[in-house]
Amino acid sequence: MSDLPTSVEIHEEGPREGFQIEPGPISTADKIRLIEALADTGLKHIQACSFVNPKLVPGWADAEEVIAGFKPVDGVHYTALWFNKRGLDRALEFKDKLSISGSISLTASDAFSRQNLNRGHEENVAAMHKQTEVHQAAGVDVVRIGVMAAFGCNFEGDIPVAAVLKAVSDGFAIADAHGAKINVISLADTMGWAIPPRIEKVIGAVRERWPDVDIALHLHNTRGIAVANAHAALKMGVRRFDSTVGGLGGCPFAAHKGAAGNICTEELVLLCEEMGIDTGVDLDRLIEVGQMAEEIVGHVLPSELIHAGSLNAFRKQVA
Amino acid sequence: MSDLPTSVEIHEEGPREGFQIEPGPISTADKIRLIEALADTGLKHIQACSFVNPKLVPGWADAEEVIAGFKPVDGVHYTALWFNKRGLDRALEFKDKLSISGSISLTASDAFSRQNLNRGHEENVAAMHKQTEVHQAAGVDVVRIGVMAAFGCNFEGDIPVAAVLKAVSDGFAIADAHGAKINVISLADTMGWAIPPRIEKVIGAVRERWPDVDIALHLHNTRGIAVANAHAALKMGVRRFDSTVGGLGGCPFAAHKGAAGNICTEELVLLCEEMGIDTGVDLDRLIEVGQMAEEIVGHVLPSELIHAGSLNAFRKQVA
Repeated sequence: MSDLPTSVEIHEEGPREGFQIEPGPISTADKIRLIEALADTGLKHIQACSFVNPKLVPGWADAEEVIAGFKPVDGVHYTALWFNKRGLDRALEFKDKLSISGSISLTASDAFSRQNLNRGHEENVAAMHKQTEVHQAAGVDVVRIGVMAAFGCNFEGDIPVAAVLKAVSDGFAIADAHGAKINVISLADTMGWAIPPRIEKVIGAVRERWPDVDIALHLHNTRGIAVANAHAALKMGVRRFDSTVGGLGGCPFAAHKGAAGNICTEELVLLCEEMGIDTGVDLDRLIEVGQMAEEIVGHVLPSELIHAGSLNAFRKQVA
Repeated sequence: MSDLPTSVEIHEEGPREGFQIEPGPISTADKIRLIEALADTGLKHIQACSFVNPKLVPGWADAEEVIAGFKPVDGVHYTALWFNKRGLDRALEFKDKLSISGSISLTASDAFSRQNLNRGHEENVAAMHKQTEVHQAAGVDVVRIGVMAAFGCNFEGDIPVAAVLKAVSDGFAIADAHGAKINVISLADTMGWAIPPRIEKVIGAVRERWPDVDIALHLHNTRGIAVANAHAALKMGVRRFDSTVGGLGGCPFAAHKGAAGNICTEELVLLCEEMGIDTGVDLDRLIEVGQMAEEIVGHVLPSELIHAGSLNAFRKQVA
């Protein structure tokens, strides 16, 4: 138990992940309402939108209106996602409101890279050199290495730890070539292959090699195991997690197929709280926001907790 | 890792838990179809029905027809649930087909006992003395102590470990008074209050006091934490779990409220398999049965895995 962190940093990605996948249409006003409600729960990191091609992701055609529209809360870091110079430029229009930094994004699975990006790992490395230059030329620090499919892949199967280490190592080589100072390695279970022993093995190996760099986990609940993976990571002292309120980001239940959403923020918060780990989040308020998210998307979300209520709510009734 | 069991014994309770709570009506033929399909997955313990008052639980008004109707598989133990002599007598009509043994069922929460059974703990102890006599008079061994609300309670809040130890100890006193040989202590997270550290604390304390008796866990996924709890228990060497295919047993999503179901059998099997723990279950076949369960109840079930597919199915595609 001695490795448990005293606090965790939760990066809420519900708006960005959720609204890009929901069939919608969802009004700009509702997107703003959710972002503002999230900032009111104590969450300090909120990924508010994607600056992506509106033809490919119609759910984020109104990214500018959403970012222009929400009232920021002091001390909350609002972030966005982009994949190219056009997206970065759109984000930079809001540099007073958004926390803007760059990532070197690689995958541990060549097959996934080809499926998802239409380019293999080596071409991706070349693209990331270029992207790092683009960021730095715009005065944006590149601070993060992200590795997708770090725990397994639908197109490649099991991913050896060595492939993860290679991807991270390639990321550092890119960073070094451009004098970028990396402070986070983010490992993503993009297709829901992680299981606690695999979490322990991969994180152990990455940490052994780069002991001074923080590890962040991006977990999907595709096969129902995300919360066990988070627990295993917490026990190893991991203190940065991405998550989505209500479990936003998966296929709606009505569609009845495909990937479930990310790990639910409120279930992660409950787990941490009950383990004595500070999240800074008011869980009962967050549960209300999860219920609001359901109302906005118009269907039941995967989170069990937003339907059951927190333990503290029951404790208060009993006291 | 040295405490990991090499195999687990999974008690499938989907038919019993599911059909008692589903609004239905569900045909007797469909109930039989699910039970037979479950026995075909490698599961060795299937709780097939409840012999309860049909006025209170209309979903099990056809318990006799179901038990008479299914074709048993050699080596599979089919069990049933009952709460009184009438129910026991109904079960005994099928003693050639069912594995019949008795339980001493107590709760760690006096408030829950009053809510659920309309009697406090001490009255419940008296009732269990009587029930043990009834079983023994019918030639049925009483082999199990069950403790409900062992990890927390909506009506009482946190449950001290001492209350769990007292309930188990009272159970042993009942058993001793009647010369019953207990071989399992079953701890139930009836209202979804368990969290890994609480699992560790309660199981540690029970095991320290009764080191020679097997511990079984009955987990509910009310707040989305069940799989983390199962993982914590596996790491302590627990090797008996109740679960339900598809997560049957909770409120249907349509109802949008109340307790989610039990831990999903297929997610428990995936977790065990990937940890190298033998379950004896063919997971891909079990996933098909989960899909069949959804079709029978007519709505989406909470299991993520039955919608995503197993890792081995993807591994086979890749190989």
